[in-house]
Amino acid sequence: MLELRLVQATLFKNVVEALGDLFSTAHFNSSRTGLELQAKDNSRVTLIMLLLRAEAFDHYLCDRGLSMGLNLAGMAKAFCCTNNDDIITIKAEEDWSDTVTFTFESPEDGDEISYFHFDFMVINGVPLEIPEYPESEYQAIVRMPSAKFMPICNKLSSFGDRDTVVIISVDKESVDFLSRGKTGTLTIFCRETQTVDKPKEPTLIEMKEKVSLMFDLRYMNSSKASTLSDQVTISLSSKLPAVFEYKITEMSCIRYYMLPRNEGR
Amino acid sequence: MLELRLVQATLFKNVVEALGDLFSTAHFNSSRTGLELQAKDNSRVTLIMLLLRAEAFDHYLCDRGLSMGLNLAGMAKAFCCTNNDDIITIKAEEDWSDTVTFTFESPEDGDEISYFHFDFMVINGVPLEIPEYPESEYQAIVRMPSAKFMPICNKLSSFGDRDTVVIISVDKESVDFLSRGKTGTLTIFCRETQTVDKPKEPTLIEMKEKVSLMFDLRYMNSSKASTLSDQVTISLSSKLPAVFEYKITEMSCIRYYMLPRNEGR
Amino acid sequence: MLELRLVQATLFKNVVEALGDLFSTAHFNSSRTGLELQAKDNSRVTLIMLLLRAEAFDHYLCDRGLSMGLNLAGMAKAFCCTNNDDIITIKAEEDWSDTVTFTFESPEDGDEISYFHFDFMVINGVPLEIPEYPESEYQAIVRMPSAKFMPICNKLSSFGDRDTVVIISVDKESVDFLSRGKTGTLTIFCRETQTVDKPKEPTLIEMKEKVSLMFDLRYMNSSKASTLSDQVTISLSSKLPAVFEYKITEMSCIRYYMLPRNEGR
Repeated sequence: MLELRLVQATLFKNVVEALGDLFSTAHFNSSRTGLELQAKDNSRVTLIMLLLRAEAFDHYLCDRGLSMGLNLAGMAKAFCCTNNDDIITIKAEEDWSDTVTFTFESPEDGDEISYFHFDFMVINGVPLEIPEYPESEYQAIVRMPSAKFMPICNKLSSFGDRDTVVIISVDKESVDFLSRGKTGTLTIFCRETQTVDKPKEPTLIEMKEKVSLMFDLRYMNSSKASTLSDQVTISLSSKLPAVFEYKITEMSCIRYYMLPRNEGR
Repeated sequence: MLELRLVQATLFKNVVEALGDLFSTAHFNSSRTGLELQAKDNSRVTLIMLLLRAEAFDHYLCDRGLSMGLNLAGMAKAFCCTNNDDIITIKAEEDWSDTVTFTFESPEDGDEISYFHFDFMVINGVPLEIPEYPESEYQAIVRMPSAKFMPICNKLSSFGDRDTVVIISVDKESVDFLSRGKTGTLTIFCRETQTVDKPKEPTLIEMKEKVSLMFDLRYMNSSKASTLSDQVTISLSSKLPAVFEYKITEMSCIRYYMLPRNEGR
Repeated sequence: MLELRLVQATLFKNVVEALGDLFSTAHFNSSRTGLELQAKDNSRVTLIMLLLRAEAFDHYLCDRGLSMGLNLAGMAKAFCCTNNDDIITIKAEEDWSDTVTFTFESPEDGDEISYFHFDFMVINGVPLEIPEYPESEYQAIVRMPSAKFMPICNKLSSFGDRDTVVIISVDKESVDFLSRGKTGTLTIFCRETQTVDKPKEPTLIEMKEKVSLMFDLRYMNSSKASTLSDQVTISLSSKLPAVFEYKITEMSCIRYYMLPRNEGR
C-alpha cells in the first residue's frame, strides 16, 4: 500500500508538467526511500529521472515497492487547473487495484475535494537501475545558474527548430553552445565567473579534459525544470551519458541523462 | 424601429463573446419589454437565452417587435477590439433595411466613431417561446458562486476533451461532478456550505429527490458567462431541460437550457 | 568593411520584428550616411523601407557601400530571446565573407556573449532608389497618433480577415476607414482634432483634394511599427504610391510605400 501527502501541490505539479511536456508516459516507482519517476524518449537517447525522497513528503507510507505506468501527459493536463497551494494525497493499493488516486484539497476550504483516479498503463521497457558515477569519471563539469542556462536554451531554440542539435564545448575557463540553423550559426560563449566578482550564483567549470559533445536541443531545453532549481549541473564525458541535474531540495532532484549524438547521424 | 443605447459596452460585449464562443448564429428578438438573444446548437441539445430587459438600457425605443438573425461569432470577433467603456447604440429599421448598426463611441473623445453594420441572416428554426417553470418543478436546485463553478468546469475540461460528458449528482448536502477521460476518472465533490461558516457566497442545495444527470461539458463550461455573474443556479430534473442560470443584474440574465444526455448515447 | 554598434538593442530588435512579421527577406544596404532596410511583398504592391542614419549609431564605420540579402523572418525569430538592453555590434567584411555577425552582449555581465552569424541570401530584385516627393505633391496628408491609428487597424482586422481591403477617404476635416467583411461593413470615422481641445497628439488633416483609395489591410496594420513611433503620417494621392511614415527619432524612420488597389481587382 502507498499513501503519500504533500502539503504544497506546487512541487509535484511542476515536476509532472516539466516531464509531461517531453514524455507522454512515465514509470512511477515507489520504495521505502522515496518516489522515483522515470521517462524515456522513444529513441532511448534521453532518460529523465526525478527523485523525491521520503523526507520530502509530509506523510510517507510505502510498505512494499510499487511500480506504476502512468499517462504523464494526461496527468500534466489534468493537474493544470488545480491550485498550487492545494494539499495532495497519493494513494494506491498494490494488491487488487489498477488505479492510483491523487486527491487535491484546499487547505482552507474543505468543502471541495477533487479525486483524480488514473488507470495504470503498460509501458514498454522496465524501469532502469541507473548507476551514479562519481564526479571524477567525467571529463568536465559545468555548474551555472538556471536563470542563465534557460535563456541560453531559449536563444538556441529560437535560432533553430525542434530538431536542432547543440554542440557543447568546454575549455579551461569557458563553455560554448553552438547551434546551426537554416539561416546561419549561433554561438553563445560563457566565461567562468571570476572570483573577484563573487556573485551569489556563479558559473563554475571543472575541466579535466577538453570535451565537445552534440545533443538534441529538444531535451536540453527543460525550461520548467529550470524553474524548480536555482542551479543546473552539467556533467560531460565522451564515454558516459551526460547528466543535466537540477537539485530541487536537499531531498529531491531531476536528472536528464542524455546520450551525446554522433556527428555523423 | 429599434433604437437602444447602453452607456457601458462591457455587458453587451461580454454577452456576445460568451455566446459567440459556442454558437455561430443567434436570433436577436426585440420587444417592448426587452432584447432577447437565442442560440441553439445543431443537435438541439442546448439552447441559450439572454434576456436584457428594457430597463437595463439607458435608452430603449422599440415600437414593434423585430426578429433579426445575426452572425454571432462574427460580431464577437468584430467587437473584441472596441473599448469596454464605449457607448453603444443599436439601430435597426424594420420596414426597409436588412442591416442593424452598432455604433461605438468613446464617452470622452467624440472624435472617433465606429459604425458596425451587420447584415441580417436567415437562421434555421424560429425563436422558441420558452416556458418558465417554477422552482418546485425541479428535483434539485444548486446555487454556487461562479468563482467556484468556473474552476470546477475547467478541471473537468482539462481532464477530458471537447466531447467529455459530465454526470452531475445531487444528494442531500452535496453535489458531485464526475467525468471519465482516456486516462481515468475525475470526481469533484462539493459540500453544501455550513451555516456556521457564513461566507458571502455560499453553496446552497435544495434537494427534493436525489438526481443524477449527464451533460455535454462543452456547453456547461461557459467561463465567460461566469464573469458576468457572481452566482450560478443549476436547476435539475429528469423530466425537464436543466437550466444553468447566470443572473447579471436584476433586469438581465443568461440561461443555458440543456437536455440531459442518455447514458446509452 | 562594416562595423556598427548600438548601445541599446531595443530599436533594432523592434524594427526587425516589425518587418519580419510581414516580409521573409530584406536587403540591408549600408552606405556612409546610414543603414537602410528594404523589403517588398511578392506582388510588389508594398515596399517597406527603414532608414537608420549613421548618427543613430554609437559607432558607425562603413568604408564602402555593402548590400546584404538577409532572412528577415529568421532574424526576427532568432533575436526574440535576446535582452532589450544588450549592446549590439554588427560586423561584415565585404571582400571575402558571405556572412554578417550580430553580437549581443549584456552591458553589465560580460561573461556571456551571443554571436549570430547570418548567411547572405540571393533576393529577387535589386534594392530600389525611392524618390522622396514633397508634401505638396500629395492630395491629402493625415497625421495622427499611433496610439489612435493602431486600434483603428485592429478593429478593421477583427472585422475582416487576412485579405481584407480598406478604403481610406479624406474629406476637409475628417478621414474615414471603411472595410467590408462577410458579415457586413465597418466604417470608422475620425474627425480632425479641434484646436480648442489642444491635446498633446492631435489628428491633423491637410486636404488639397478629396481622395479615396483602397489598400490591403495586411500591410497597413503594422502594430509593431506603431510602438516605435508616437505618430503616423499618411500621405495620399491617386497618382503616387501612398506613404505611411513612422518617424522613430530625428535620424530614423520606417516608411511603408503602398500602391493603392484598383476597385476592380
